[in-house]
Amino acid sequence: LSKQPLYVIKIGGNVIDDAEKLSAFIRAFAAINGHKILVHGGGKLATRLAEQLGIEQQVVDGRRITDTETLRVVTMVYAGYVNKTLVAQLQAAGSNAIGLTGADGNAILAHKRQHPAIDYGFVGDIDSVNAAWLHSLLREQIDIVMAPITHDAHGQLLNTNADTIAQEIAVALSEYYTVDLIYCFEKPGVLSNAADESSVIGQIDPNSYLRLREEKLIFAGMIPKLDNAFRALEKGVRQVMIGKAEELSLVIERKSGTAIVPHT
Amino acid sequence: LSKQPLYVIKIGGNVIDDAEKLSAFIRAFAAINGHKILVHGGGKLATRLAEQLGIEQQVVDGRRITDTETLRVVTMVYAGYVNKTLVAQLQAAGSNAIGLTGADGNAILAHKRQHPAIDYGFVGDIDSVNAAWLHSLLREQIDIVMAPITHDAHGQLLNTNADTIAQEIAVALSEYYTVDLIYCFEKPGVLSNAADESSVIGQIDPNSYLRLREEKLIFAGMIPKLDNAFRALEKGVRQVMIGKAEELSLVIERKSGTAIVPHT
Repeated sequence: LSKQPLYVIKIGGNVIDDAEKLSAFIRAFAAINGHKILVHGGGKLATRLAEQLGIEQQVVDGRRITDTETLRVVTMVYAGYVNKTLVAQLQAAGSNAIGLTGADGNAILAHKRQHPAIDYGFVGDIDSVNAAWLHSLLREQIDIVMAPITHDAHGQLLNTNADTIAQEIAVALSEYYTVDLIYCFEKPGVLSNAADESSVIGQIDPNSYLRLREEKLIFAGMIPKLDNAFRALEKGVRQVMIGKAEELSLVIERKSGTAIVPHT
Repeated sequence: LSKQPLYVIKIGGNVIDDAEKLSAFIRAFAAINGHKILVHGGGKLATRLAEQLGIEQQVVDGRRITDTETLRVVTMVYAGYVNKTLVAQLQAAGSNAIGLTGADGNAILAHKRQHPAIDYGFVGDIDSVNAAWLHSLLREQIDIVMAPITHDAHGQLLNTNADTIAQEIAVALSEYYTVDLIYCFEKPGVLSNAADESSVIGQIDPNSYLRLREEKLIFAGMIPKLDNAFRALEKGVRQVMIGKAEELSLVIERKSGTAIVPHT
Protein backbone atom coordinates (compact mmCIF):
# COMPACT_ATOMS: atom_id res chain seq x y z
CA LEU A 1 0.00 0.00 0.00
CA SER A 2 1.59 3.29 -1.05
CA LYS A 3 1.46 6.23 1.35
CA GLN A 4 -0.76 9.22 0.66
CA PRO A 5 0.87 12.60 0.09
CA LEU A 6 1.09 15.19 2.88
CA TYR A 7 2.20 18.79 2.42
CA VAL A 8 3.82 20.51 5.42
CA ILE A 9 4.00 24.19 4.55
CA LYS A 10 5.75 26.88 6.55
CA ILE A 11 4.97 30.57 6.04
CA GLY A 12 7.06 33.34 7.48
CA GLY A 13 6.21 36.72 8.88
CA ASN A 14 6.42 38.52 5.55
CA VAL A 15 3.31 36.64 4.35
CA ILE A 16 1.38 37.23 7.57
CA ASP A 17 2.15 40.95 7.54
CA ASP A 18 0.88 41.43 3.96
CA ALA A 19 -2.92 41.06 3.56
CA GLU A 20 -2.72 40.57 -0.21
CA LYS A 21 0.03 37.92 -0.12
CA LEU A 22 -1.77 36.20 2.73
CA SER A 23 -5.07 36.10 0.89
CA ALA A 24 -3.43 34.59 -2.22
CA PHE A 25 -1.65 32.06 -0.02
CA ILE A 26 -4.86 31.10 1.85
CA ARG A 27 -6.67 30.40 -1.44
CA ALA A 28 -3.77 28.31 -2.75
CA PHE A 29 -3.45 26.36 0.50
CA ALA A 30 -7.19 25.64 0.70
CA ALA A 31 -7.12 24.46 -2.93
CA ILE A 32 -4.51 21.74 -2.26
CA ASN A 33 -6.16 18.43 -2.87
CA GLY A 34 -5.05 16.22 0.00
CA HIS A 35 -3.61 16.31 3.48
CA LYS A 36 -1.86 19.46 4.62
CA ILE A 37 -0.36 21.19 7.63
CA LEU A 38 0.43 24.89 7.87
CA VAL A 39 3.14 26.06 10.27
CA HIS A 40 3.31 29.80 10.83
CA GLY A 41 5.60 32.33 12.43
CA GLY A 42 4.49 35.58 13.91
CA GLY A 43 5.49 38.46 11.69
CA LYS A 44 6.06 41.91 13.04
CA LEU A 45 2.97 41.84 15.25
CA ALA A 46 4.73 40.35 18.28
CA THR A 47 7.57 42.87 18.09
CA ARG A 48 5.09 45.73 17.67
CA LEU A 49 2.94 44.57 20.60
CA ALA A 50 6.00 44.18 22.85
CA GLU A 51 7.03 47.72 21.93
CA GLN A 52 3.55 49.10 22.65
CA LEU A 53 3.61 47.40 26.05
CA GLY A 54 7.09 48.70 26.78
CA ILE A 55 8.60 45.22 26.98
CA GLU A 56 12.24 45.39 26.03
CA GLN A 57 13.29 42.80 23.46
CA GLN A 58 16.68 41.25 24.02
CA VAL A 59 18.28 39.61 21.00
CA VAL A 60 21.45 37.52 21.47
CA ASP A 61 23.17 36.06 18.38
CA GLY A 62 20.08 36.82 16.31
CA ARG A 63 17.81 34.95 18.73
CA ARG A 64 15.08 36.60 20.74
CA ILE A 65 15.38 36.01 24.48
CA THR A 66 11.97 34.96 25.77
CA ASP A 67 11.32 36.23 29.28
CA THR A 68 7.93 35.81 31.02
CA GLU A 69 6.46 38.97 29.51
CA THR A 70 7.73 38.14 26.01
CA LEU A 71 6.32 34.61 26.29
CA ARG A 72 2.94 36.11 27.11
CA VAL A 73 3.18 38.39 24.08
CA VAL A 74 4.15 35.63 21.63
CA THR A 75 1.48 33.30 23.04
CA MET A 76 -1.14 36.01 22.54
CA VAL A 77 0.03 36.94 19.04
CA TYR A 78 1.06 33.54 17.60
CA ALA A 79 -1.42 31.18 19.28
CA GLY A 80 -4.20 33.78 19.54
CA TYR A 81 -4.41 36.46 16.89
CA VAL A 82 -2.36 34.97 14.03
CA ASN A 83 -3.44 31.36 14.48
CA LYS A 84 -7.17 32.09 14.77
CA THR A 85 -7.16 34.65 11.98
CA LEU A 86 -5.58 32.04 9.69
CA VAL A 87 -8.08 29.39 10.81
CA ALA A 88 -11.09 31.65 10.21
CA GLN A 89 -9.81 32.64 6.75
CA LEU A 90 -9.08 29.02 5.84
CA GLN A 91 -12.56 27.96 6.98
CA ALA A 92 -14.00 30.67 4.71
CA ALA A 93 -11.88 29.34 1.83
CA GLY A 94 -13.21 25.79 2.27
CA SER A 95 -10.40 24.26 4.33
CA ASN A 96 -11.60 22.56 7.50
CA ALA A 97 -8.75 23.99 9.55
CA ILE A 98 -8.01 23.70 13.25
CA GLY A 99 -5.35 25.74 15.00
CA LEU A 100 -3.03 24.12 17.51
CA THR A 101 0.02 24.76 19.61
CA GLY A 102 2.34 21.99 20.73
CA ALA A 103 0.51 21.94 24.07
CA ASP A 104 -2.83 20.98 22.47
CA GLY A 105 -3.20 17.23 22.54
CA ASN A 106 0.46 17.12 23.57
CA ALA A 107 1.21 17.63 19.86
CA ILE A 108 4.81 18.77 20.34
CA LEU A 109 6.77 18.08 23.48
CA ALA A 110 9.82 20.26 24.10
CA HIS A 111 12.23 21.25 26.85
CA LYS A 112 13.58 24.63 27.87
CA ARG A 113 16.80 25.28 25.98
CA GLN A 114 19.93 24.66 28.02
CA HIS A 115 22.96 26.68 27.01
CA PRO A 116 26.24 26.98 28.96
CA ALA A 117 26.53 30.76 28.46
CA ILE A 118 23.20 32.23 27.30
CA ASP A 119 19.86 32.05 29.10
CA TYR A 120 17.37 32.04 26.23
CA GLY A 121 14.47 32.11 28.67
CA PHE A 122 11.33 30.24 27.65
CA VAL A 123 12.66 28.93 24.34
CA GLY A 124 11.86 25.30 23.60
CA ASP A 125 13.86 22.64 21.77
CA ILE A 126 11.70 19.82 20.45
CA ASP A 127 11.79 16.32 21.97
CA SER A 128 8.97 14.64 20.07
CA VAL A 129 5.97 15.12 17.79
CA ASN A 130 2.71 13.27 18.53
CA ALA A 131 2.51 11.98 14.95
CA ALA A 132 -0.18 9.39 15.68
CA TRP A 133 -2.60 12.04 16.90
CA LEU A 134 -1.86 14.51 14.10
CA HIS A 135 -2.40 11.58 11.70
CA SER A 136 -5.80 10.88 13.28
CA LEU A 137 -6.85 14.50 12.64
CA LEU A 138 -5.57 14.51 9.04
CA ARG A 139 -7.40 11.23 8.38
CA GLU A 140 -10.65 13.09 9.15
CA GLN A 141 -9.83 15.64 6.41
CA ILE A 142 -8.83 18.26 8.97
CA ASP A 143 -6.09 20.73 8.00
CA ILE A 144 -3.78 21.59 10.89
CA VAL A 145 -2.52 25.13 11.53
CA MET A 146 0.39 25.02 13.97
CA ALA A 147 1.57 28.04 15.97
CA PRO A 148 5.25 28.13 17.01
CA ILE A 149 4.54 27.49 20.69
CA THR A 150 5.24 24.17 22.39
CA HIS A 151 5.10 22.90 25.98
CA ASP A 152 7.19 20.83 28.39
CA ALA A 153 4.31 18.70 29.81
CA HIS A 154 4.92 20.32 33.21
CA GLY A 155 2.70 23.32 32.51
CA GLN A 156 5.25 25.55 30.80
CA LEU A 157 4.61 26.97 27.33
CA LEU A 158 7.76 27.47 25.23
CA ASN A 159 8.57 29.72 22.25
CA THR A 160 9.86 27.47 19.46
CA ASN A 161 11.33 28.15 16.02
CA ALA A 162 8.69 27.66 13.30
CA ASP A 163 11.16 26.33 10.68
CA THR A 164 12.23 23.64 13.13
CA ILE A 165 8.62 22.78 13.99
CA ALA A 166 7.82 22.34 10.29
CA GLN A 167 10.85 20.11 9.82
CA GLU A 168 10.14 17.94 12.88
CA ILE A 169 6.48 17.52 11.91
CA ALA A 170 7.46 16.59 8.34
CA VAL A 171 9.94 13.98 9.59
CA ALA A 172 7.57 12.52 12.20
CA LEU A 173 4.67 12.20 9.75
CA SER A 174 6.86 10.47 7.14
CA GLU A 175 5.91 7.33 9.04
CA TYR A 176 2.34 7.70 7.69
CA TYR A 177 2.65 9.83 4.55
CA THR A 178 4.88 10.71 1.60
CA VAL A 179 5.79 14.16 2.88
CA ASP A 180 6.74 17.28 0.93
CA LEU A 181 8.08 20.04 3.18
CA ILE A 182 7.61 23.50 1.69
CA TYR A 183 9.23 26.69 2.98
CA CYS A 184 7.52 29.81 1.68
CA PHE A 185 9.57 32.98 1.86
CA GLU A 186 10.11 36.36 0.12
CA LYS A 187 12.20 35.07 -2.78
CA PRO A 188 11.04 32.74 -5.58
CA GLY A 189 13.56 30.07 -4.51
CA VAL A 190 17.26 29.58 -3.85
CA LEU A 191 19.04 32.07 -6.11
CA SER A 192 22.46 31.61 -7.72
CA ASN A 193 22.68 35.42 -7.79
CA ALA A 194 21.09 37.02 -4.72
CA ALA A 195 20.41 40.22 -6.67
CA ASP A 196 18.60 38.46 -9.53
CA GLU A 197 15.20 36.88 -8.85
CA SER A 198 15.29 35.09 -12.19
CA SER A 199 18.36 33.08 -11.11
CA VAL A 200 16.34 30.43 -9.23
CA ILE A 201 18.14 27.10 -8.96
CA GLY A 202 15.50 24.53 -9.92
CA GLN A 203 16.92 21.57 -8.05
CA ILE A 204 19.65 20.96 -5.50
CA ASP A 205 20.90 17.52 -4.49
CA PRO A 206 23.75 16.81 -2.06
CA ASN A 207 26.37 16.90 -4.85
CA SER A 208 25.24 20.18 -6.39
CA TYR A 209 24.88 21.61 -2.85
CA LEU A 210 28.58 20.93 -2.20
CA ARG A 211 29.51 22.55 -5.51
CA LEU A 212 27.29 25.62 -4.89
CA ARG A 213 28.86 26.10 -1.47
CA GLU A 214 32.39 25.75 -2.86
CA GLU A 215 31.57 28.33 -5.53
CA LYS A 216 30.10 30.56 -2.77
CA LEU A 217 26.89 30.91 -4.78
CA ILE A 218 24.81 30.14 -1.70
CA PHE A 219 24.79 32.92 0.86
CA ALA A 220 25.15 32.66 4.63
CA GLY A 221 21.50 32.71 5.80
CA MET A 222 20.56 29.99 3.34
CA ILE A 223 23.13 27.45 4.58
CA PRO A 224 21.39 26.44 7.86
CA LYS A 225 18.05 26.25 5.95
CA LEU A 226 19.56 23.87 3.37
CA ASP A 227 21.42 21.86 6.00
CA ASN A 228 18.08 21.36 7.75
CA ALA A 229 16.43 20.45 4.46
CA PHE A 230 18.98 17.71 3.75
CA ARG A 231 18.61 16.44 7.30
CA ALA A 232 14.84 16.17 6.73
CA LEU A 233 15.44 14.18 3.53
CA GLU A 234 17.75 11.79 5.37
CA LYS A 235 14.99 11.19 7.90
CA GLY A 236 12.33 10.23 5.37
CA VAL A 237 10.88 13.44 3.88
CA ARG A 238 10.47 13.01 0.10
CA GLN A 239 11.48 16.51 -0.98
CA VAL A 240 11.85 20.02 0.40
CA MET A 241 10.64 22.92 -1.72
CA ILE A 242 11.63 26.55 -1.21
CA GLY A 243 9.53 29.18 -2.98
CA LYS A 244 7.15 32.13 -2.82
CA ALA A 245 3.95 31.91 -0.76
CA GLU A 246 1.87 33.55 -3.50
CA GLU A 247 3.08 30.89 -5.94
CA LEU A 248 2.29 27.95 -3.66
CA SER A 249 0.30 26.04 -6.30
CA LEU A 250 3.20 26.28 -8.77
CA VAL A 251 5.75 25.42 -6.10
CA ILE A 252 3.81 22.25 -5.24
CA GLU A 253 3.80 21.27 -8.92
CA ARG A 254 7.54 22.06 -9.07
CA LYS A 255 6.88 24.73 -11.71
CA SER A 256 8.33 27.39 -9.39
CA GLY A 257 10.86 27.43 -6.57
CA THR A 258 13.80 25.21 -5.66
CA ALA A 259 13.47 21.49 -4.99
CA ILE A 260 15.89 20.03 -2.46
CA VAL A 261 16.15 16.32 -3.22
CA PRO A 262 18.22 13.31 -2.12
CA HIS A 263 21.09 11.93 -4.24
CA THR A 264 19.73 11.62 -7.78
CA LEU B 1 -27.63 1.58 25.30
CA SER B 2 -27.46 4.30 27.94
CA LYS B 3 -25.53 7.46 27.16
CA GLN B 4 -22.20 8.18 28.86
CA PRO B 5 -21.94 11.23 31.11
CA LEU B 6 -20.41 14.48 29.87
CA TYR B 7 -19.56 17.48 32.06
CA VAL B 8 -19.64 20.90 30.43
CA ILE B 9 -18.02 23.28 32.90
CA LYS B 10 -17.84 27.05 32.59
CA ILE B 11 -15.36 29.10 34.61
CA GLY B 12 -15.51 32.83 34.90
CA GLY B 13 -12.85 35.49 35.07
CA ASN B 14 -12.57 35.40 38.85
CA VAL B 15 -11.08 31.89 38.64
CA ILE B 16 -8.69 32.78 35.81
CA ASP B 17 -7.43 35.87 37.64
CA ASP B 18 -6.59 33.94 40.84
CA ALA B 19 -3.62 31.53 40.50
CA GLU B 20 -4.54 29.57 43.63
CA LYS B 21 -8.22 29.10 42.71
CA LEU B 22 -7.21 28.20 39.18
CA SER B 23 -4.71 25.61 40.30
CA ALA B 24 -7.30 23.95 42.57
CA PHE B 25 -9.81 24.02 39.73
CA ILE B 26 -7.34 22.52 37.22
CA ARG B 27 -6.61 19.59 39.55
CA ALA B 28 -10.32 18.96 40.13
CA PHE B 29 -11.15 19.20 36.43
CA ALA B 30 -8.34 16.83 35.42
CA ALA B 31 -9.49 14.36 38.08
CA ILE B 32 -13.01 14.03 36.63
CA ASN B 33 -13.40 10.49 35.44
CA GLY B 34 -15.06 10.74 32.04
CA HIS B 35 -15.77 13.16 29.20
CA LYS B 36 -15.48 16.86 29.88
CA ILE B 37 -15.45 20.26 28.22
CA LEU B 38 -14.18 23.46 29.80
CA VAL B 39 -15.55 26.80 28.59
CA HIS B 40 -13.69 29.86 29.83
CA GLY B 41 -14.13 33.60 29.88
CA GLY B 42 -11.29 36.07 29.91
CA GLY B 43 -10.96 37.67 33.30
CA LYS B 44 -9.49 41.08 33.78
CA LEU B 45 -6.60 40.46 31.38
CA ALA B 46 -8.46 41.65 28.27
CA THR B 47 -9.59 44.85 29.98
CA ARG B 48 -6.08 45.46 31.30
CA LEU B 49 -4.45 44.84 27.89
CA ALA B 50 -6.94 47.17 26.16
CA GLU B 51 -6.11 49.83 28.74
CA GLN B 52 -2.36 49.38 28.25
CA LEU B 53 -2.83 49.73 24.49
CA GLY B 54 -5.00 52.81 24.92
CA ILE B 55 -8.05 51.13 23.36
CA GLU B 56 -11.17 52.70 24.79
CA GLN B 57 -13.73 50.19 26.00
CA GLN B 58 -17.34 51.07 25.27
CA VAL B 59 -19.93 49.32 27.39
CA VAL B 60 -23.62 49.64 26.46
CA ASP B 61 -26.24 48.05 28.73
CA GLY B 62 -23.52 46.06 30.48
CA ARG B 63 -22.24 44.64 27.19
CA ARG B 64 -18.80 45.36 25.81
CA ILE B 65 -18.85 46.78 22.30
CA THR B 66 -16.32 44.85 20.20
CA ASP B 67 -14.65 47.05 17.60
CA THR B 68 -11.77 45.78 15.42
CA GLU B 69 -9.12 46.64 18.00
CA THR B 70 -11.08 45.09 20.86
CA LEU B 71 -11.67 41.92 18.82
CA ARG B 72 -7.92 41.65 18.32
CA VAL B 73 -7.37 42.06 22.06
CA VAL B 74 -9.94 39.43 23.10
CA THR B 75 -8.68 37.02 20.43
CA MET B 76 -5.14 37.41 21.75
CA VAL B 77 -6.14 37.10 25.40
CA TYR B 78 -8.94 34.51 25.26
CA ALA B 79 -7.83 32.28 22.37
CA GLY B 80 -4.12 32.86 22.95
CA TYR B 81 -2.93 33.49 26.47
CA VAL B 82 -5.80 32.16 28.60
CA ASN B 83 -6.70 29.19 26.41
CA LYS B 84 -3.12 27.93 25.98
CA THR B 85 -2.18 28.52 29.61
CA LEU B 86 -5.18 26.40 30.64
CA VAL B 87 -4.26 23.69 28.12
CA ALA B 88 -0.63 23.52 29.27
CA GLN B 89 -1.68 23.33 32.94
CA LEU B 90 -4.28 20.66 32.18
CA GLN B 91 -1.73 18.61 30.23
CA ALA B 92 0.58 18.81 33.26
CA ALA B 93 -2.30 17.62 35.48
CA GLY B 94 -2.93 14.57 33.31
CA SER B 95 -5.83 15.83 31.18
CA ASN B 96 -5.24 15.41 27.44
CA ALA B 97 -6.65 18.85 26.67
CA ILE B 98 -6.92 20.71 23.40
CA GLY B 99 -7.88 24.36 23.13
CA LEU B 100 -10.35 25.52 20.51
CA THR B 101 -12.31 28.51 19.36
CA GLY B 102 -15.56 28.18 17.42
CA ALA B 103 -13.56 28.73 14.21
CA ASP B 104 -11.46 25.60 14.74
CA GLY B 105 -13.06 22.70 12.90
CA ASN B 106 -16.09 24.98 12.45
CA ALA B 107 -16.94 24.04 16.05
CA ILE B 108 -19.34 26.96 16.64
CA LEU B 109 -20.94 28.87 13.82
CA ALA B 110 -22.31 32.32 14.67
CA HIS B 111 -23.46 35.54 13.04
CA LYS B 112 -22.73 39.15 13.87
CA ARG B 113 -25.38 40.42 16.27
CA GLN B 114 -28.06 42.50 14.60
CA HIS B 115 -29.72 45.08 16.84
CA PRO B 116 -32.07 47.86 15.72
CA ALA B 117 -30.43 50.52 17.91
CA ILE B 118 -27.02 49.36 19.15
CA ASP B 119 -24.04 48.33 17.03
CA TYR B 120 -22.36 45.73 19.21
CA GLY B 121 -19.52 45.39 16.70
CA PHE B 122 -17.97 41.96 16.31
CA VAL B 123 -20.21 40.19 18.80
CA GLY B 124 -21.50 36.80 17.69
CA ASP B 125 -24.81 35.07 18.36
CA ILE B 126 -24.63 31.31 17.95
CA ASP B 127 -26.27 29.50 15.02
CA SER B 128 -25.01 25.95 15.55
CA VAL B 129 -22.55 23.72 17.38
CA ASN B 130 -20.65 21.04 15.45
CA ALA B 131 -21.62 18.37 17.97
CA ALA B 132 -20.58 15.43 15.78
CA TRP B 133 -17.00 16.68 15.60
CA LEU B 134 -16.74 17.57 19.29
CA HIS B 135 -18.11 14.08 20.00
CA SER B 136 -15.38 12.53 17.82
CA LEU B 137 -12.72 14.34 19.90
CA LEU B 138 -14.30 13.38 23.24
CA ARG B 139 -14.51 9.76 22.09
CA GLU B 140 -10.70 9.76 21.82
CA GLN B 141 -10.45 10.82 25.51
CA ILE B 142 -9.61 14.38 24.56
CA ASP B 143 -10.78 17.15 26.92
CA ILE B 144 -11.91 20.27 25.09
CA VAL B 145 -11.06 23.80 26.30
CA MET B 146 -13.27 26.31 24.48
CA ALA B 147 -12.43 30.03 24.26
CA PRO B 148 -15.36 32.47 23.89
CA ILE B 149 -14.58 33.30 20.26
CA THR B 150 -16.67 32.01 17.34
CA HIS B 151 -16.71 32.67 13.58
CA ASP B 152 -19.21 33.32 10.80
CA ALA B 153 -17.68 30.95 8.20
CA HIS B 154 -16.89 33.98 6.03
CA GLY B 155 -13.55 34.70 7.71
CA GLN B 156 -14.81 36.86 10.58
CA LEU B 157 -14.00 35.98 14.19
CA LEU B 158 -16.69 37.01 16.71
CA ASN B 159 -16.64 37.70 20.45
CA THR B 160 -19.26 35.47 22.07
CA ASN B 161 -20.62 35.16 25.60
CA ALA B 162 -19.00 32.21 27.40
CA ASP B 163 -22.15 31.34 29.43
CA THR B 164 -24.11 31.01 26.20
CA ILE B 165 -21.37 28.92 24.56
CA ALA B 166 -21.42 26.52 27.52
CA GLN B 167 -25.20 26.25 27.31
CA GLU B 168 -25.29 25.68 23.54
CA ILE B 169 -22.54 23.06 23.71
CA ALA B 170 -24.33 21.27 26.54
CA VAL B 171 -27.60 21.22 24.60
CA ALA B 172 -26.00 20.11 21.32
CA LEU B 173 -24.04 17.28 22.94
CA SER B 174 -27.15 15.96 24.74
CA GLU B 175 -27.68 14.03 21.52
CA TYR B 176 -24.66 11.87 22.40
CA TYR B 177 -24.25 12.15 26.18
CA THR B 178 -26.09 12.60 29.47
CA VAL B 179 -24.92 16.15 30.03
CA ASP B 180 -24.39 18.02 33.30
CA LEU B 181 -23.79 21.74 32.75
CA ILE B 182 -21.81 23.33 35.58
CA TYR B 183 -21.37 27.07 36.10
CA CYS B 184 -18.49 27.86 38.44
CA PHE B 185 -18.59 31.30 40.01
CA GLU B 186 -17.53 33.24 43.15
CA LYS B 187 -20.36 32.07 45.41
CA PRO B 188 -20.97 28.53 46.65
CA GLY B 189 -24.31 28.36 44.80
CA VAL B 190 -27.60 30.22 44.50
CA LEU B 191 -28.14 31.93 47.86
CA SER B 192 -31.49 32.62 49.52
CA ASN B 193 -29.72 35.45 51.35
CA ALA B 194 -27.13 37.19 49.17
CA ALA B 195 -25.17 38.27 52.27
CA ASP B 196 -24.96 34.78 53.75
CA GLU B 197 -22.80 32.20 51.95
CA SER B 198 -24.25 29.42 54.09
CA SER B 199 -27.74 30.04 52.64
CA VAL B 200 -27.13 27.91 49.51
CA ILE B 201 -30.32 26.54 48.00
CA GLY B 202 -29.54 22.88 47.32
CA GLN B 203 -32.01 22.32 44.51
CA ILE B 204 -34.29 24.45 42.36
CA ASP B 205 -36.98 23.07 40.07
CA PRO B 206 -39.44 25.12 37.99
CA ASN B 207 -41.96 25.28 40.85
CA SER B 208 -39.52 26.38 43.53
CA TYR B 209 -38.01 28.85 41.03
CA LEU B 210 -41.39 30.56 40.64
CA ARG B 211 -41.78 30.71 44.41
CA LEU B 212 -38.24 32.06 44.96
CA ARG B 213 -38.87 34.79 42.40
CA GLU B 214 -42.20 35.73 43.91
CA GLU B 215 -40.55 35.96 47.32
CA LYS B 216 -37.78 38.06 45.69
CA LEU B 217 -35.16 35.75 47.20
CA ILE B 218 -33.37 35.52 43.86
CA PHE B 219 -31.56 38.68 42.88
CA ALA B 220 -31.46 40.38 39.48
CA GLY B 221 -28.21 39.05 37.98
CA MET B 222 -29.15 35.47 38.79
CA ILE B 223 -32.47 35.53 36.89
CA PRO B 224 -31.05 35.36 33.32
CA LYS B 225 -28.61 32.64 34.47
CA LEU B 226 -31.47 30.55 35.86
CA ASP B 227 -33.72 31.24 32.88
CA ASN B 228 -30.90 29.92 30.66
CA ALA B 229 -30.44 26.93 32.93
CA PHE B 230 -34.11 25.94 32.65
CA ARG B 231 -33.96 26.43 28.88
CA ALA B 232 -30.99 24.02 28.75
CA LEU B 233 -32.97 21.44 30.76
CA GLU B 234 -35.90 21.74 28.36
CA LYS B 235 -33.53 21.02 25.50
CA GLY B 236 -32.11 17.80 26.93
CA VAL B 237 -29.46 18.71 29.50
CA ARG B 238 -29.84 16.47 32.58
CA GLN B 239 -29.05 19.04 35.25
CA VAL B 240 -27.38 22.39 35.69
CA MET B 241 -25.15 22.93 38.72
CA ILE B 242 -24.03 26.29 40.05
CA GLY B 243 -21.15 26.33 42.52
CA LYS B 244 -17.60 27.32 43.42
CA ALA B 245 -14.73 26.45 41.07
CA GLU B 246 -12.49 25.32 43.93
CA GLU B 247 -15.22 22.91 45.04
CA LEU B 248 -15.76 21.39 41.60
CA SER B 249 -15.41 17.78 42.79
CA LEU B 250 -18.07 18.34 45.46
CA VAL B 251 -20.32 20.23 43.05
CA ILE B 252 -20.20 17.30 40.60
CA GLU B 253 -21.18 14.92 43.40
CA ARG B 254 -23.96 17.36 44.39
CA LYS B 255 -22.39 17.77 47.84
CA SER B 256 -21.93 21.49 47.20
CA GLY B 257 -23.68 24.11 45.07
CA THR B 258 -27.17 24.42 43.66
CA ALA B 259 -28.73 21.86 41.32
CA ILE B 260 -31.18 23.21 38.76
CA VAL B 261 -33.41 20.30 37.78
CA PRO B 262 -36.57 19.69 35.70
CA HIS B 263 -39.98 19.22 37.34
CA THR B 264 -39.47 16.72 40.14
